[in-house]
Amino acid sequence: MDQSFMARAIELSLENIRRRNGGPFGAVIVKDGTIIAEGVNSVTAKNDPTAHAEIVAIREACSKLDTFSLTNCEIFTSCEPCPMCLGAIYWAHISCIYFGNAAADASKIGFDDSFIYLEFAQPLPARKIPMIQIMHDEALTAFRAWQQKPDKILY
Amino acid sequence: MDQSFMARAIELSLENIRRRNGGPFGAVIVKDGTIIAEGVNSVTAKNDPTAHAEIVAIREACSKLDTFSLTNCEIFTSCEPCPMCLGAIYWAHISCIYFGNAAADASKIGFDDSFIYLEFAQPLPARKIPMIQIMHDEALTAFRAWQQKPDKILY
Repeated sequence: MDQSFMARAIELSLENIRRRNGGPFGAVIVKDGTIIAEGVNSVTAKNDPTAHAEIVAIREACSKLDTFSLTNCEIFTSCEPCPMCLGAIYWAHISCIYFGNAAADASKIGFDDSFIYLEFAQPLPARKIPMIQIMHDEALTAFRAWQQKPDKILY
Repeated sequence: MDQSFMARAIELSLENIRRRNGGPFGAVIVKDGTIIAEGVNSVTAKNDPTAHAEIVAIREACSKLDTFSLTNCEIFTSCEPCPMCLGAIYWAHISCIYFGNAAADASKIGFDDSFIYLEFAQPLPARKIPMIQIMHDEALTAFRAWQQKPDKILY
């Protein structure tokens, strides 16, 4: 583990404030000891609530490597990933996460990370955003079609 | 609640299998009784592990409305959102979630949704992807700079 990678993620988070691009968050993705992608929070600049530093870096790394899997890559992020970004890291199969600030630190400066983690621990009917299941039988037809498809690409 | 919106999300999920674009998932975002954005899972076609139906639809809706907040919008998704997508829905401030299949259904056909939800419930040292905190003091400098910035755009 090279501290220079985290230093770069933190530098990106500071630059992002100065540039008025979004929240104070930066991330880099490292493969074989080299940074292959960088990301900064661009939520407000790009009108994209999914444009957190980690998501931006993951999309950039996958685009560069021409793959949807970042096995054998590490992510260095200036803050503990929020649930959205942690989910993305799992889907991308990144091998290790280094983080600087904790989710609790982000909450202290007004970000919802800890609140969203708490929501995930609630049963569906107790959550702040209502979650209502409808048309289950109809929806299952697509899952059955997927199961029966012989040439599907798994991810 | 109009069942035609969920019917459209399910139709998108079925089309997506036929088109070999990605997994069997579709979503639509509705505002004032009208579909304003649609999304399908495009992970394998676009080499983007974050391109789940809900994320694609959220990005499209925000782009169309020129905003990073989808307050007063509803999402109809053919499957219960995974942790990444549920996080994105919270960040986008969507008001209500309708879903067809459950996360457990997705797991039965080979998707990691339930596994990732279980991981979130584990303490950091027990998770499958190691999460290591480093350089906390240095990372906090960006959070302090954010707090002190008078003209920041909150989201």
